[in-house]
Amino acid sequence: MPRGLFITLEGGEGAGKSTNLAFIHQWLQRAGHAVVVTREPGGTELGERVRDILLHSRELHITPETEMLLMFAARAEHLAKVIRPALAAGKAVLCDRFTDATYAYQGGGRGLPAERIASMETRVQGDLRPDLTLLLDLPVEAGRERAGQRGAPDRFERENNEFFSRVRETYLARARAEPARMRIIDASRPLEQVERQITATLEEFVRDR
Amino acid sequence: MPRGLFITLEGGEGAGKSTNLAFIHQWLQRAGHAVVVTREPGGTELGERVRDILLHSRELHITPETEMLLMFAARAEHLAKVIRPALAAGKAVLCDRFTDATYAYQGGGRGLPAERIASMETRVQGDLRPDLTLLLDLPVEAGRERAGQRGAPDRFERENNEFFSRVRETYLARARAEPARMRIIDASRPLEQVERQITATLEEFVRDR
Repeated sequence: MPRGLFITLEGGEGAGKSTNLAFIHQWLQRAGHAVVVTREPGGTELGERVRDILLHSRELHITPETEMLLMFAARAEHLAKVIRPALAAGKAVLCDRFTDATYAYQGGGRGLPAERIASMETRVQGDLRPDLTLLLDLPVEAGRERAGQRGAPDRFERENNEFFSRVRETYLARARAEPARMRIIDASRPLEQVERQITATLEEFVRDR
Repeated sequence: MPRGLFITLEGGEGAGKSTNLAFIHQWLQRAGHAVVVTREPGGTELGERVRDILLHSRELHITPETEMLLMFAARAEHLAKVIRPALAAGKAVLCDRFTDATYAYQGGGRGLPAERIASMETRVQGDLRPDLTLLLDLPVEAGRERAGQRGAPDRFERENNEFFSRVRETYLARARAEPARMRIIDASRPLEQVERQITATLEEFVRDR
């Protein structure tokens, strides 16, 4: 059996990840895929506990290296328990954030050198990378305005605009460096247009495989 | 200022680590050292949360690789926040379990290859290793009998005797491979004799430095 598609969705605060994740999920189902929808950090019982430490420990200062090691510990579990078994069974895996987010947040945002992240990526993932990554991009202030309408901010959401500018720039630089895998979706446009761009990207991706 | 002494205490279940930790602490204080007593997993707020996941998630199955990565994530934080600053300030650090325990439990016990652990050790610790490690050794069944008199067993304590035999053998093999750093204390003897052996070992260690 050929292994299933591995698709990840990335984007900063308020980029509309939840809404568009549901849209992509539906699109894949209509295209005949059995889909496993999951998220990082999280995706397993252990991962959700680590997520809780990382996102909701308001008063907790953690060094960037530790934060990154925790992300990869949770990722190792997620790969072993959820992602690799689903792909091996021919299912499509749709994951809300993956290793690009580690480069963007712990690398760009917190200033950790990309090589420190790359060596853990190789260690934990081997040569497994997403087949397609959709990056929902929009200006930092527009995103934060949208995100600000939700509840209390988590450990990352409390960072300042410079942090989120570095996150965005890192995401965009990665998309420019890997244009075949990582597609930029303009998330500042009205939802209907965003969905149209996502549909066109998915159709092109499936056709070219 | 010369960096402080880094002393670790290792041993299986029921080896008397708590009692002997207090004894070593007192000995170091009487010898004029400012002492920081700490433990792994744990030692920081983040580390204690990771400890809670690792020890008290009764129903949680975690892969050995993830368990090891979590140990090193907590260790990175412990080194950055507690151990390295204390050593740099000339203080003696007395740590209840350290990386030898990762080799013994995740390596020997869970079967993770030693090279997987060694590469994380180098990554997280650089060239920092304990100056002296006291290994409280006793037969598995004697230790489990003592430990069994305490409360509910944690995730490790519920393992079987074969697991703990592999843990003990790994500890002993490490002590034989590094006799200058790692000293075997016969913890099966009466407490007074154990204390006498610990005292002699500490005196010899301090004299030879």
